[in-house]
Amino acid sequence: MNLTTLNFKVRLVSYTKDGEKIIAIAAKMSRSRRGWDDHVDMSEDEVRTWVSDAILHGYWSVIEHSSYTFSIEGISRVASHQLVRHRIASYTQMSHRFAKPKDEFYRPVIPPSFKDDEGFQTSYREYIKALESGVPEEDARYLLPNGVNTNLVVTMNARELYNFFGLRLCSRAQWEIRAIAWKMLEEVKRVHPTLFRYAGPNCIIHENFIREEPITLEDEKEFVSQRCIEGVPRQGIWKCIRNSQSILNKR
Amino acid sequence: MNLTTLNFKVRLVSYTKDGEKIIAIAAKMSRSRRGWDDHVDMSEDEVRTWVSDAILHGYWSVIEHSSYTFSIEGISRVASHQLVRHRIASYTQMSHRFAKPKDEFYRPVIPPSFKDDEGFQTSYREYIKALESGVPEEDARYLLPNGVNTNLVVTMNARELYNFFGLRLCSRAQWEIRAIAWKMLEEVKRVHPTLFRYAGPNCIIHENFIREEPITLEDEKEFVSQRCIEGVPRQGIWKCIRNSQSILNKR
Amino acid sequence: MNLTTLNFKVRLVSYTKDGEKIIAIAAKMSRSRRGWDDHVDMSEDEVRTWVSDAILHGYWSVIEHSSYTFSIEGISRVASHQLVRHRIASYTQMSHRFAKPKDEFYRPVIPPSFKDDEGFQTSYREYIKALESGVPEEDARYLLPNGVNTNLVVTMNARELYNFFGLRLCSRAQWEIRAIAWKMLEEVKRVHPTLFRYAGPNCIIHENFIREEPITLEDEKEFVSQRCIEGVPRQGIWKCIRNSQSILNKR
Amino acid sequence: MNLTTLNFKVRLVSYTKDGEKIIAIAAKMSRSRRGWDDHVDMSEDEVRTWVSDAILHGYWSVIEHSSYTFSIEGISRVASHQLVRHRIASYTQMSHRFAKPKDEFYRPVIPPSFKDDEGFQTSYREYIKALESGVPEEDARYLLPNGVNTNLVVTMNARELYNFFGLRLCSRAQWEIRAIAWKMLEEVKRVHPTLFRYAGPNCIIHENFIREEPITLEDEKEFVSQRCIEGVPRQGIWKCIRNSQSILNKR
Repeated sequence: MNLTTLNFKVRLVSYTKDGEKIIAIAAKMSRSRRGWDDHVDMSEDEVRTWVSDAILHGYWSVIEHSSYTFSIEGISRVASHQLVRHRIASYTQMSHRFAKPKDEFYRPVIPPSFKDDEGFQTSYREYIKALESGVPEEDARYLLPNGVNTNLVVTMNARELYNFFGLRLCSRAQWEIRAIAWKMLEEVKRVHPTLFRYAGPNCIIHENFIREEPITLEDEKEFVSQRCIEGVPRQGIWKCIRNSQSILNKR
Repeated sequence: MNLTTLNFKVRLVSYTKDGEKIIAIAAKMSRSRRGWDDHVDMSEDEVRTWVSDAILHGYWSVIEHSSYTFSIEGISRVASHQLVRHRIASYTQMSHRFAKPKDEFYRPVIPPSFKDDEGFQTSYREYIKALESGVPEEDARYLLPNGVNTNLVVTMNARELYNFFGLRLCSRAQWEIRAIAWKMLEEVKRVHPTLFRYAGPNCIIHENFIREEPITLEDEKEFVSQRCIEGVPRQGIWKCIRNSQSILNKR
Repeated sequence: MNLTTLNFKVRLVSYTKDGEKIIAIAAKMSRSRRGWDDHVDMSEDEVRTWVSDAILHGYWSVIEHSSYTFSIEGISRVASHQLVRHRIASYTQMSHRFAKPKDEFYRPVIPPSFKDDEGFQTSYREYIKALESGVPEEDARYLLPNGVNTNLVVTMNARELYNFFGLRLCSRAQWEIRAIAWKMLEEVKRVHPTLFRYAGPNCIIHENFIREEPITLEDEKEFVSQRCIEGVPRQGIWKCIRNSQSILNKR
Repeated sequence: MNLTTLNFKVRLVSYTKDGEKIIAIAAKMSRSRRGWDDHVDMSEDEVRTWVSDAILHGYWSVIEHSSYTFSIEGISRVASHQLVRHRIASYTQMSHRFAKPKDEFYRPVIPPSFKDDEGFQTSYREYIKALESGVPEEDARYLLPNGVNTNLVVTMNARELYNFFGLRLCSRAQWEIRAIAWKMLEEVKRVHPTLFRYAGPNCIIHENFIREEPITLEDEKEFVSQRCIEGVPRQGIWKCIRNSQSILNKR
């Protein structure tokens, strides 16, 4: 068994292709007496303006019109249990009642702090022993370790993603879900750079609520915030962000 | 002013193009140990099977992965107030605080039971009089009739649409929102006929929970249900459905 | 007709009596291996600490366990349409399909910027005329002015209330829903002063995300925020808040 | 270690005391022009009528006004992971990041199909070994078995409970969450027998959508449904329900 951890895959498998434009038109229609057809030929520049304005003024509801579906594979049930706590989202999860994680399908997530996979092998042997002694599959899995791998299909809209990123990109988030979140951010930024320009951990989100010039993950502008919501003082925030982000290097 | 009523427009302006396939793959992944790539070359036949099975066995969560955005224009605030009561959806509405429904933009929805538009003209004159006397726009609208026209951008996923249709295609639903619902159904059936094959008012939905062979709006199979949830007895249900659907002919 | 406006009533008719304690115990249980019985004899001091900590560290999910039901009577459909846009809440609204706002039950909300109620009387006469000409009740209401009075029963949990207050106590909120929001805040503060100690418009909420010592509506501590999310600069925020709050004096 | 399984506790720790009355008044207000005060002296008989009518006619939104908080202790993470998938609810869960399930706090749920607890003891030894070798708590728990015990505080309103019961009282639900669901039903029926009179697995819920005389779990009236949504034919449904319910005898 390979101890390289974080072998999970995060793939954006479907999304609202013209999501940024849809959001811009919707935002404009809320201020206009005209209908969709009158706005549909919007320039890319105008799209950028409406989208950025929506985010920087907290007009969050309008960004719900763009939606993202991910296939997230090979994460632990420790992480999936945290993930599904985000309630404004849709989930379909591989069921260990019906899909036995046996043989080459047993690929538990082993935290980097472990020196070897011995414990996870022992758990596996106990699982197999139970199956062989006649314990049904849906019961035998009570023995599987929490690190056992699972797959999910997850759909979130852009507003929920902002909320999810705010909480889960933060260095206080548990490292596995944090790695997943940073990877999801990469995926959506690739397709909708304007829409996710201001996404980040809550320190960034909150900072943009209260400062004159907006801030992004890319520029290390000094914070106005005295502290982040988790208590990190102004001077330590950027270091904390970079530290959180470095989880991706462990892959 | 033209008394032809129901001049509203319902346009599907964006949706998950491969929504039926996404749903099918997600459903399959919940039973499989393999990932997205292993399922992505699914045949259309297999898509149909997974999607239909999901709906007929009440596996609703999986159909949430497909999402639909409508531009709904020229409906009354009577209807929009009912529409936004569906909470698992996203809305952006034209604001009468910022967009004055004046001149050619005043196109109230006049119910077919009215003989003329006189009352609506009187209301309009009072609205204009208030504006001219210095009442600000956001206050003057308190005088606008409930029938005044508004526009919305609405996003719902397929599960919420099934729920919305169940309630709003029913003959007990108020006629304007009912007309909107039948039009929305037309739109989504055009693009995803497999997914919305079993959509209908609650009598149809509930019937499919409890009968052996599924039923659709198209075939007039006899009901097993003794009555619909609204109290219409078995023999009257099809007539009630056709009556409800006929609202579209009034356009 | 009396031109005194804002005659609406906001009444807290039910709520989680021991809500603050429930929240405190739940928060403590998330960090503890022991069960409910081991925490149930919590001192008031300890309750205060757990509740305040939850709010000041953005541990919002825990405050969802306390719930509040209001009877809101005599507001306009302008306001009710905005109110029901808050989706994480439960609503039951008086139906103008079934309950005719006639005679003494016609009490439209007349904005203070109107000099008289003439327009609203004209609308009423048109409504009655339509009813008398045989237009059914559910259609005649298309003529009723948007200011027409309605009643709702509304249930929100403490987390949604914080969100609702953040948006609707703000001076940018439309004046009627703003007045309703300030009145709702009064009601919940009366019964749960600890839990709603830090509630306020978003400027206050956001400020507490980023400053060392928390701030409340009662103390006029200087803001660290350079601006509020609506763009009011630091020096103007307190004046803006007091201005917003003064809506209650118009009752 | 005692092999008696299902040692979990389900306790209703808070709820809307006058929930049935609140629901009845709200339902009545939707049809009335009068306010709360005019309805507050409702007789118990009238309460019963409004509440039953709401449920039997699918007027579900009104029953959201009554809310229930449970302390659920000693369930497995297999069950808690399923439980939190119900998104219209509030959860606070014991964190294994902060609360080590060691010594007397390690009380895994061992399915009745196991002959002994050996596998769970082995897992525990591996967990302790990891902790002793310096693996931090939040990582060591990747080794804990999925059956490891956890505690949650859960709040659901009556509508969500009806939905939860529909799915989780069913014999197809996994046995542990099924046992929890039957216990929760006992708890809420004790305090609000009128409101939960028609609660049951989906076969019962759906049957009441389509039959003339309502049916409850207590009376074994013949089903009109040809089959339940899970495919059990008419003749087998009552046996299936009793079989599902018998899970409580295993405690």
